[in-house]
Amino acid sequence: MISFSKIEYLSPRMTHFSNDIVQCYDRIKSYIHRTPVLQSRLVNERAGCSIFFKCENMQRMGAFKMRGAANAILSLSEDERKRGVVTHSSGNFAQAVALSALVLGIDATIVMPSNAPAVKKAAVADYGAQIIECEPTIEAREAATQKVVDAHGKKALHPSNAIEVITGNATAAYELLADYPDLDIVISPVGGGGLLAGTAMAGASFSDTCQVIGAEPMQADDAYQSLKAGHIIKYDKVDTIADGLRTYLGDVNFPIIQSHVQEIIRVEESEIIDAMKFVWERMKIIIEASSAVPVAAIFKKPEIFTGKKVGLIISGGNVDLGALPFTVS
Amino acid sequence: MISFSKIEYLSPRMTHFSNDIVQCYDRIKSYIHRTPVLQSRLVNERAGCSIFFKCENMQRMGAFKMRGAANAILSLSEDERKRGVVTHSSGNFAQAVALSALVLGIDATIVMPSNAPAVKKAAVADYGAQIIECEPTIEAREAATQKVVDAHGKKALHPSNAIEVITGNATAAYELLADYPDLDIVISPVGGGGLLAGTAMAGASFSDTCQVIGAEPMQADDAYQSLKAGHIIKYDKVDTIADGLRTYLGDVNFPIIQSHVQEIIRVEESEIIDAMKFVWERMKIIIEASSAVPVAAIFKKPEIFTGKKVGLIISGGNVDLGALPFTVS
Repeated sequence: MISFSKIEYLSPRMTHFSNDIVQCYDRIKSYIHRTPVLQSRLVNERAGCSIFFKCENMQRMGAFKMRGAANAILSLSEDERKRGVVTHSSGNFAQAVALSALVLGIDATIVMPSNAPAVKKAAVADYGAQIIECEPTIEAREAATQKVVDAHGKKALHPSNAIEVITGNATAAYELLADYPDLDIVISPVGGGGLLAGTAMAGASFSDTCQVIGAEPMQADDAYQSLKAGHIIKYDKVDTIADGLRTYLGDVNFPIIQSHVQEIIRVEESEIIDAMKFVWERMKIIIEASSAVPVAAIFKKPEIFTGKKVGLIISGGNVDLGALPFTVS
Repeated sequence: MISFSKIEYLSPRMTHFSNDIVQCYDRIKSYIHRTPVLQSRLVNERAGCSIFFKCENMQRMGAFKMRGAANAILSLSEDERKRGVVTHSSGNFAQAVALSALVLGIDATIVMPSNAPAVKKAAVADYGAQIIECEPTIEAREAATQKVVDAHGKKALHPSNAIEVITGNATAAYELLADYPDLDIVISPVGGGGLLAGTAMAGASFSDTCQVIGAEPMQADDAYQSLKAGHIIKYDKVDTIADGLRTYLGDVNFPIIQSHVQEIIRVEESEIIDAMKFVWERMKIIIEASSAVPVAAIFKKPEIFTGKKVGLIISGGNVDLGALPFTVS
């Protein structure tokens, strides 16, 4: 359990947040894509509501993580930029940091577990980052990262629990609400909490009425349990097909989620796979299992969504096409 | 070889075509989706030009065929509507006719070869159409269709060689040119010729400068050979992964293509698969092999496309997800 305190600027009108998000957006906008918003009659028919899919699967490197990584790196001091950055990740944040660093001409080191898929290592290497392999445990990853910090003075970037990253993530919902200001609800998946907290910041800042809801696998429901308990719950081991959501909340994003997220909906693995297949087949877009979690949540809870205008953050589309969790019936 | 004559209204300024397309669009627009136009920096970097993807894979039933089928059925006389329609198809046109007929409340019969995939038969049956099975030869299909016409007076619909279908197809490029009037080139795949002819009609009608180019598998290059010979060439047997492009031109669409298509580019099977994989992985959209053919053509011929604004009709996205022609490297 991590101690935390409400961060200072959670005022009712959120003016501080909205300034931060607007400034962040100006900072990163030339380094990111303004992703399209898609709709689907078939999905709406099944869901009983109007869903506006914010397609961060079409973001640079294939996930919203580019927003937070770009903002974190653009927020470095001149001295920090010279010394470079380090992060540990086997997933999208590694690629986001590597690409952002490449674009901005700074040095990046990525600590990756030895069992990370070759395709992900190759993507990071393609972006010119240095890879350090370590044992596939969280302790080994953190130790290897700290070693790089100590030896080379590099700045360690956390994938979800740093305010620069969270504010960068908030720009996805900010763009969505700029396009569709009258959304009743915005829903995003929750794993490490960085996307949901950013989405909640944007919802609270740029709409008086829009609710923000999180969606989480039942088998990794630490965020749901954390909100219920009033403190961060961590599981030793979680197993879900939504591999982006196997992490836990942090002391920076948790208070934002506590203050500005109405509810977290939990879904079963079979519901995630069903929703993922439905989106692939009916919308013809490639989404990660993690992105199917909020779709499954909407299908599961018509009492919350029926008749509403719902924004949904499709978090990413980096999928191993050779290992799909479904086949065509 | 089929005889043909230039159809009368191929005048230099195309006013007749443009009226037809506008009227058609008004007729069908409430039955189709206005599909999104997507762009991709990574694809543009590889291609050396700016490509505007008209995503007919996101059209109703997953392909542009909905446009032509809807227009053909909406153009029936009252008497014809009462008696219903019949077509033979194992692919997207079957689904398009079945769905259009369902939406418009008329009776549809689809002749399908006995070896058609179960998933395609199920889709047609789901739309409420009657299925008649026949031997998997073109002669058996035509005979079975004629039998339905003779016995029940149903109107036979051709998937690509009827002016109503071609005009319906033209509305895809019409929408694209409405969004992006300054395109230098529009490119589409060519199989039966219905999409390319429609695209050429729209290009000639709504732009003074836009060229229209077709793209075709080398292994099914009957359209290329037909243009070269000045008459329609048919192959007895073609084999290409682009299953939507295994058919040949007809006497209605060929003269339109002759007059208004600048060039047909041919690509190898490996180039099609490479382009398909590139679009899936980089753009995160699901496209059929047939839709990868124009992408491969652009990659292959930088001397034609470099620096240009290119519209590209993504013809469809109905793919057997269990049988992809590529794996992730």
